[in-house]
Formats: sequence, structure tokens, C-alpha cells
Amino acid sequence: MADQYAHSGDDKRPTEIPAIRWEEPPEGPVLVLLDQTRLPVEEVELVCTDAPALVEAIRSLAVRGAPLLGIAGAYGVALAAVRGFDVEEAAVALAGARPTAVNLAVGVRRARSAHEAALADGGDVRQAAAAALAAARQLHREDAEASGRMAEHGLALLEELLPGGGHRILTHCNTGSLVSGGEGTAFAVALAAHRTGRLRRLWVDETRPLLQGARLTAYEAARSGMAYTLLTDNAAGSLFAAGEVDAVLIGADRITADGSVANKVGSYPLAVLARYHHVPFIVVAPVTTVDLDTADGASVEVEQRPGHEVTEVTAPQVPVVGAEAGGGIAVAPLGTQAYNPAFDVTPAELVTAIVTEEGVVSPVTAEALAEVCARSRRAAV
Amino acid sequence: MADQYAHSGDDKRPTEIPAIRWEEPPEGPVLVLLDQTRLPVEEVELVCTDAPALVEAIRSLAVRGAPLLGIAGAYGVALAAVRGFDVEEAAVALAGARPTAVNLAVGVRRARSAHEAALADGGDVRQAAAAALAAARQLHREDAEASGRMAEHGLALLEELLPGGGHRILTHCNTGSLVSGGEGTAFAVALAAHRTGRLRRLWVDETRPLLQGARLTAYEAARSGMAYTLLTDNAAGSLFAAGEVDAVLIGADRITADGSVANKVGSYPLAVLARYHHVPFIVVAPVTTVDLDTADGASVEVEQRPGHEVTEVTAPQVPVVGAEAGGGIAVAPLGTQAYNPAFDVTPAELVTAIVTEEGVVSPVTAEALAEVCARSRRAAV
Repeated sequence: MADQYAHSGDDKRPTEIPAIRWEEPPEGPVLVLLDQTRLPVEEVELVCTDAPALVEAIRSLAVRGAPLLGIAGAYGVALAAVRGFDVEEAAVALAGARPTAVNLAVGVRRARSAHEAALADGGDVRQAAAAALAAARQLHREDAEASGRMAEHGLALLEELLPGGGHRILTHCNTGSLVSGGEGTAFAVALAAHRTGRLRRLWVDETRPLLQGARLTAYEAARSGMAYTLLTDNAAGSLFAAGEVDAVLIGADRITADGSVANKVGSYPLAVLARYHHVPFIVVAPVTTVDLDTADGASVEVEQRPGHEVTEVTAPQVPVVGAEAGGGIAVAPLGTQAYNPAFDVTPAELVTAIVTEEGVVSPVTAEALAEVCARSRRAAV
Repeated sequence: MADQYAHSGDDKRPTEIPAIRWEEPPEGPVLVLLDQTRLPVEEVELVCTDAPALVEAIRSLAVRGAPLLGIAGAYGVALAAVRGFDVEEAAVALAGARPTAVNLAVGVRRARSAHEAALADGGDVRQAAAAALAAARQLHREDAEASGRMAEHGLALLEELLPGGGHRILTHCNTGSLVSGGEGTAFAVALAAHRTGRLRRLWVDETRPLLQGARLTAYEAARSGMAYTLLTDNAAGSLFAAGEVDAVLIGADRITADGSVANKVGSYPLAVLARYHHVPFIVVAPVTTVDLDTADGASVEVEQRPGHEVTEVTAPQVPVVGAEAGGGIAVAPLGTQAYNPAFDVTPAELVTAIVTEEGVVSPVTAEALAEVCARSRRAAV
């Protein structure tokens, strides 16, 4: 079950609250999540004491973003183990909470493998639980380190492609410290550019339907003191046409063996616009996002989300008079069918570069991608 | 002053209510408007008995859409004349209700000129009022006829480009009977395809920030019994990629002499996607939309609208607890700057065809456009 700690609410000046943390109060270990559905209006923490609460938090998008989902999944397995629940059942439920997110399954598997290995080595239940927790913490630490290295590689790439700074960078969805054990993926690169004085402006796509750009990226940009401007997703076109975009930086939910990039819906139209306007389209993602077992973009199962995310507008933090089935305000006629894919897929030929913690893949080819993955495995040995 | 006739509200099955109509009940002539700010939740009519009430309805966007504004302006002048108010004062107030809407000023001028001409010809006040009303009715009729002819030409073009029917058409913003004396522009073509059994599906872009697609086009599609599906603007990309779009049909706010099309923001990205996927991109607009005095797309001044349309979500028909400055719910951090252009501009080379009531311009060239305008002027003589 999940409880809520309410922070601020009236205090509009946000404090630095991590997206995820493991706590061990006297009542027993808990996983504490910053509830991202309440941002930017309120900073509220969700406290999970078991895997079902975490599954619910994942489904409701209280916790979201590929790397963070991996970390959450690993901690979820550890939580089940430490609290004496059925670890296999928890692992299955967690891995299936969102189908497209490969990191989630990877994180779950990692903690579960550690747990199984400890048991197989003759460890007792407590030792196995400790091994699962150690695996989750290790993943968390590695993700933070990977963020830092992606930022370094990304910054060097920007300098190479756009020498002299003054970058006007367009980003989509949310890829900062709210999705990561560190400072994120694409956002971490923009942040590094900001800190070195090379960022002129961050253009923030609002990212319909769930408005992660408006709610979360704008929140992180404001918190970092960046110059940023919010826009509706469809206003990006005229920015490109006016020559106001120097590069697009986005994250990835899954990168297939051929270099296709599954990411938040709306990424693909940006890739097409970037190509049409000869603007670099750069994907920033850890090597764990690369799924060599999926051959190509066509093989990616794209999650279809409920239509009410489109037919109603919601703002969970504010009570609405006359709310509809999905909890929001109807903006379309009753019974309207909606097409609401969570992701779209951008083929490799539209991607200028993929920035990973192991280096930059450019041009994006199956061979170069396999090589960076092999490098990562060698480093892990 | 304006009164409200509340229709339905609970009855979710909409009835056929025209966007505008002139009525002559025993109490005296009135102009009745469907209040578009309340759609799709409620069908409420606004009854205007004088020009100030109509000015208020125009300002609040209860009545909107270029052709419909022209008709409303003409009827507004007639209303003032018939009811014995100061016609000049009414005309000035109406023409200035939305300064950028050229059709509004044109409609007002037409009724006013008829009024003045009747007086100059020795007519009395009653005869002059009748002349103003006749001019308004004539404009209304002409607009309806133009709709019908655009639908015919558009349908023939679809049959030529995509023989055999089964069309899956993507549209943006709202271009149907809510903006027209008839059945509209792009929507009228889709409707003609529907009636002849050639429309497989209408894909309706929600059209952020003001959601005219979700609120108004979905309403018109539902009312017409079309198979339609709503989507966020940025989900169009994956529809194109999946081969699910056979043609894009949009309207236009202004077409410049070189064939550039200024239309609701989000049109240009669709044009780029359509080009990338070899899908016809078709603009449907009356000849009055062509502005031969504006040389090219770069000369179009694009209206920048208030940032709160992006930083807050609003649904005027539903009271919201804790509303912000713009009357909505904040979805971005306080103080967030927004880029919010009302329109974007699509260059002629991305437009497959412009469908007017005088015929189809394809390929889109300055010469062909000038020729269709000349044809229209000859027809009017």
C-alpha cells in the first residue's frame, strides 16, 4: 500500500526532492517516490511498502521514465524480498506493469537474478533479500554515473556539431533527474550546456496528452535556472521554419538492434521536421535502453493508452467540479474514440547520433550499436 | 442584449442546430447564435437583439471562424438597422470586435454599403434596413453555395488522387458548419466523402492549445455520423508512418499571392509529414481567403496569443476550483514563458492542391492562383 507525505503545496519554490529513494524507518523498509502526477503544483511523496503499490504507482505514472523505471523495478523486487513477500510474483507483476519499457523488465530481472543467485549459493532468505537490495542500489548508482558520462559525451558532440555554443535546443517529454538516478539523459546534456554557458534557450514541448514537458521538464528547467520556453507540440514546426532550433535532444524508451528509437509519441514528427530543416536529431540514452533482441522498429509493441487521456483534460492536483469518467474535464463529445499511442518509432536514418554513457554512435548503424553494447559488457566484466 | 436558450445539457444526442440564424419572432427580429464556447458539453443558443450583444459574442469566441464572422457582421448591421439603432455606430463596433479578422470587416462593409445605397437612392429607413438584411442573407447564401462547390471540387480531386474511396483523411482545427454559412471548407469535403460512402475514417487532430478539433470537429463529425477518431496533434506522425493517412485536408486563414498557406498552428508540421510520406496535402478555402496583396508567406504577420493558453488548461463550460489568472488550471510552473503563435505558414511547394469554389489549383503556383481569383471576379460581374 502507498501513503502520501504532502510537501509544500503552497510553497511555490520547489526544493530538491529525489525522484526515488530507499528508506529504512523503524516500521520497515519503504520505497519513497516523488509523485510526478502532482507536479509542478505540489511536491508529494508516495511511500510504497509492497510491490502492488509500486505497480500502481508505475501504471498511474507517479513514477515514470525509462531509467527510473528500471531502478524502481529493481527496488520493487528488493522490497518484496526484504518484507518477505513472494519475490517471483512481485517480479512478474512489476515487469508487466508497462509493456514497452524495456528498462523496467531489465531492472526487475537484475534484482531477481541477484536474489536467485544468493539462494542458489546457499544463502538464506535474509541474505537473498540483501543481495536483491544491493543489486538495486548498484543499478541506481550506475545510472547516476551513466548520466554524468552521457552529459559529457553529449556536450562534446554539441560542440563538434555546433561549435561556439549559443545552442537553442528543442526537447520533448521529460528526461531529467525525474527519470533517472542522476541528472537524466537528454536533459542532462542540456543542463551541462547550461552550466558551461553554451545553452541559449531550451524549447520545451508540452508533450500531450500527459503534458510531461509542461509539468516536469519546465519544472526541472526552472529549478536549474535555465532560459526556457514552453510550446504546444504542434508549434515546433514554425520554430524550425524560423531557424530557431539548432538541435533536437530527446531520450529513448527502447532502441532496437537496427537503431530504431521508440520514444514518447511526438518524437517521430520532430525527427521528420529536423531532417527537413537539416537540424541534428540526437537521442541520449544509456546502453541498457538498447535492446539487441528486438530486430527493428516494426517489432516494437507500442503501448496504447486509454482514450480518456485525450478526450478529457486532467490536472490531478486540482479538484474539478463535474469531472468525467477519467477524472477530468470532457473536451470531446461523449463516446469519442481516441488514438492514444504512448510511443512512436523513429527509424535510424533520421537519427543523427545516439549518445550513450559508452560514447556516441554516429552514424547510427546496427554494427556501431552492437559495438557500443559490447564495450559496455566488457566494462561490466 | 443576449438571452440564452438552453438546449439539451443532459440529452447527449445532439440535434442539428445551425451556427447562425436570423429569426423574426413577434417581439422583433433577432440573431440567434450557437454558443461555441459551450460545445461539446452543451448546446446553448445566444439570442442577440442588438449589435453590442453580438460584439460581445464575437469577442468571447461564442461565434468564430472566418466565413461565419463575415456573415455575423453583416447580420449585425442589419439587426441595428431593422431595430432602429445607429447603423454607423453598430458597424464600427462590429468591424472592430476582432481587428485581425478580415472577413468580419468585409461582411460589415457589405451590409452597410447596401444600407447606404438604399438611402442614397431615396429609400426610407425601412427600405434601407431591408436592403441591409438582404445583403446579409445574400452573403450567407453565397457562403453556403461556395461550401457546396468546394465540396464538389474536393470530392472530385480525392477521387482523382485516390481512386476507389476508402479514404482515411486527417484534418486539423475546425472547418465545418460551425465556421460557415454552409458546411464549411475542408470538413465539407470530408462530409461529401462520407455521404457518398467513400470516407473510411476521419482522423481529428485535437488542435492545441484551444482544442478546436476535440471540441468542435469531433462534435460535427459525431453529429454527421462519421467514423472518426480523435488524436493528440503529435500522434499524427505514427499514423503517417503506419500508412493510415491517405490525405490531409485543412482550411486556410490566408493564402498569399505565392500560394503560401497561413492556417492554424500545427498545419505546417502536417505538411512536412505528408511530404515525407508522399501523402497529398490539400487546402480547402474560398477565393476570398486568397490575399493577392500579400506577396509571400514571410510577409504574413502571425498573431502571437497569450501564454496562458499553453501554461493553463481551460474548459470554459466547467467551473474549476482553484483557477489561475487565465481562468484555467496551471500545468506549468508559475512564471513559465510560452511561445504561442496562432498560425503557421506552409509554403506552396508542400501543398498538393488548393480547392476553391471556382475550382482546384494544382500545382500551386502564383499564376494559377491569380487565374482562379480572376475567374471569381468575372463570375461576380
